[in-house]
Amino acid sequence: MNIKPLGERVVIKRLEAEETTKSGIVLTGAAKEQPQEAEVIAVGPGAIVDGKRIEMEVKIGDKILYSKYAGTEVKVSGEEYTILKQEDILAIVE
Amino acid sequence: MNIKPLGERVVIKRLEAEETTKSGIVLTGAAKEQPQEAEVIAVGPGAIVDGKRIEMEVKIGDKILYSKYAGTEVKVSGEEYTILKQEDILAIVE
Amino acid sequence: MNIKPLGERVVIKRLEAEETTKSGIVLTGAAKEQPQEAEVIAVGPGAIVDGKRIEMEVKIGDKILYSKYAGTEVKVSGEEYTILKQEDILAIVE
Amino acid sequence: MNIKPLGERVVIKRLEAEETTKSGIVLTGAAKEQPQEAEVIAVGPGAIVDGKRIEMEVKIGDKILYSKYAGTEVKVSGEEYTILKQEDILAIVE
Amino acid sequence: MNIKPLGERVVIKRLEAEETTKSGIVLTGAAKEQPQEAEVIAVGPGAIVDGKRIEMEVKIGDKILYSKYAGTEVKVSGEEYTILKQEDILAIVE
Amino acid sequence: MNIKPLGERVVIKRLEAEETTKSGIVLTGAAKEQPQEAEVIAVGPGAIVDGKRIEMEVKIGDKILYSKYAGTEVKVSGEEYTILKQEDILAIVE
Amino acid sequence: MNIKPLGERVVIKRLEAEETTKSGIVLTGAAKEQPQEAEVIAVGPGAIVDGKRIEMEVKIGDKILYSKYAGTEVKVSGEEYTILKQEDILAIVE
Repeated sequence: MNIKPLGERVVIKRLEAEETTKSGIVLTGAAKEQPQEAEVIAVGPGAIVDGKRIEMEVKIGDKILYSKYAGTEVKVSGEEYTILKQEDILAIVE
Repeated sequence: MNIKPLGERVVIKRLEAEETTKSGIVLTGAAKEQPQEAEVIAVGPGAIVDGKRIEMEVKIGDKILYSKYAGTEVKVSGEEYTILKQEDILAIVE
Repeated sequence: MNIKPLGERVVIKRLEAEETTKSGIVLTGAAKEQPQEAEVIAVGPGAIVDGKRIEMEVKIGDKILYSKYAGTEVKVSGEEYTILKQEDILAIVE
Repeated sequence: MNIKPLGERVVIKRLEAEETTKSGIVLTGAAKEQPQEAEVIAVGPGAIVDGKRIEMEVKIGDKILYSKYAGTEVKVSGEEYTILKQEDILAIVE
Repeated sequence: MNIKPLGERVVIKRLEAEETTKSGIVLTGAAKEQPQEAEVIAVGPGAIVDGKRIEMEVKIGDKILYSKYAGTEVKVSGEEYTILKQEDILAIVE
Repeated sequence: MNIKPLGERVVIKRLEAEETTKSGIVLTGAAKEQPQEAEVIAVGPGAIVDGKRIEMEVKIGDKILYSKYAGTEVKVSGEEYTILKQEDILAIVE
Repeated sequence: MNIKPLGERVVIKRLEAEETTKSGIVLTGAAKEQPQEAEVIAVGPGAIVDGKRIEMEVKIGDKILYSKYAGTEVKVSGEEYTILKQEDILAIVE
């Protein structure tokens, strides 16, 4: 992967329905209000607050839930990714 | 439970009407403005403010009141949960 | 009382017109802009600002004035209460 | 007076036109944009900022100018008062 | 002058067109977007930020430019003044 | 020049098209979204943040780019100037 | 390049479609929500927060992704550039 997110941003890849089922998350049909499951592909260095770097709470490989309306979609080498801020991640799925 | 909320978020499970009655809370029929009772299922590590982690004030198993319009609903293994920020919790019911 | 408010929230019970008269507060008929008198029933631990807990300024038993449009109403054991933030309390009536 | 304002709030009593004239303030007929003169009746303990109490700049008995649209009106023992935040006081009239 | 502004407020008196000309400022006819020239009549003690008083940057007698839509007008002893915050002063005219 | 800007404000003089060309900046005809080039005429002492004066980053004589919709225009001795905050300056042209 | 951005701003030059392909980024036809690739041409000294300069995270020559609606376009010596704040850069493409 050749995208290095800035600040507290992460790059994630949306998990398809099949993978979603494996991890035990069943998304409802009325998908509007449902969060989306994804895998973390790249992690920024963290935001700087009052001159101090705040360490990131997610790492590459984490499965996460995020609002599907957060972030910006980008296509790299034919694959679709989303760049979003860590504060838009709701939870890590373990 | 396999969802680990980030920051100051918690995962809660809505208590049904029967349990609600047991704890002494009677929700009115005009439910619109009434807070909802729920049980805390998972608790995030707490927000980071000025580089310091702020400890969470609720713990797993707490019965809480929250605005039913706060948070994001998610279905895990066929069960419905809500992920919301601790600041949207009004009170702990003891 | 079995409700423990979080942060800088308090639980209050609205005082009826008769009690109101006793304390010397006469609410006008055009009640829209008039604050409401209430008694403090439970007090949260206080907000945390910059990692420090800010002590609450009201205590259980205080008679207070608050905007009747602030807070969230909740019914516990058949009694109606309001959960509101301390910053929405205008004054203590002594 | 039995009202103790919270935080940086004060209780004031509007001065009638006659008193206003004595202090040299003549309010114009088009009163919409004109500030109102009042006397400070009770003073809160001051706001808490970063854990430190900020001392109040007005004291009981001060004649002040304030925007007549600021604050909340309340009737105590048949007298009308206004509870407002100190930041809504424009100036002290000496 | 018997008005003592609070915080970072100042009391100013608008300079008429004749005085304006003397100081070299010529206001255009289309006055809408043009700042107004005035003289500082009274200066508040300064705002308090993080418990520290911030010294004021203008003093009595300064000629200033300000947006004519800032502040609140008040009539004292038949004279019109404006009370405004120092942050609404654009520049000192020397 | 007899205007001394307050805080982090500067006084600038718009450069005409001829000067603009000399410095290598060619403004497009569709001027709506294009920044304007100007020369810094006077510089304020800098904003005060947390009790500390923040030094200004531009100095008298600097050629700058700014949004032509920022700031307030003023005419002094028949010349038009603009008073704007340093944060509205996009870049220095060297 | 003769533009020196202020604060945490950078000057960037949009990469054309051909270059974009080389770096492996394929922008979709529905370009509305897609970020734009660009090269960093000049970097400001960094924002000042609480009196401390925050170091910039991008450097001259970096290929970046940014929202094509962020920043201000400017033409210098016939070339088009964009001046934008570092916080509007989504990621560095390596």
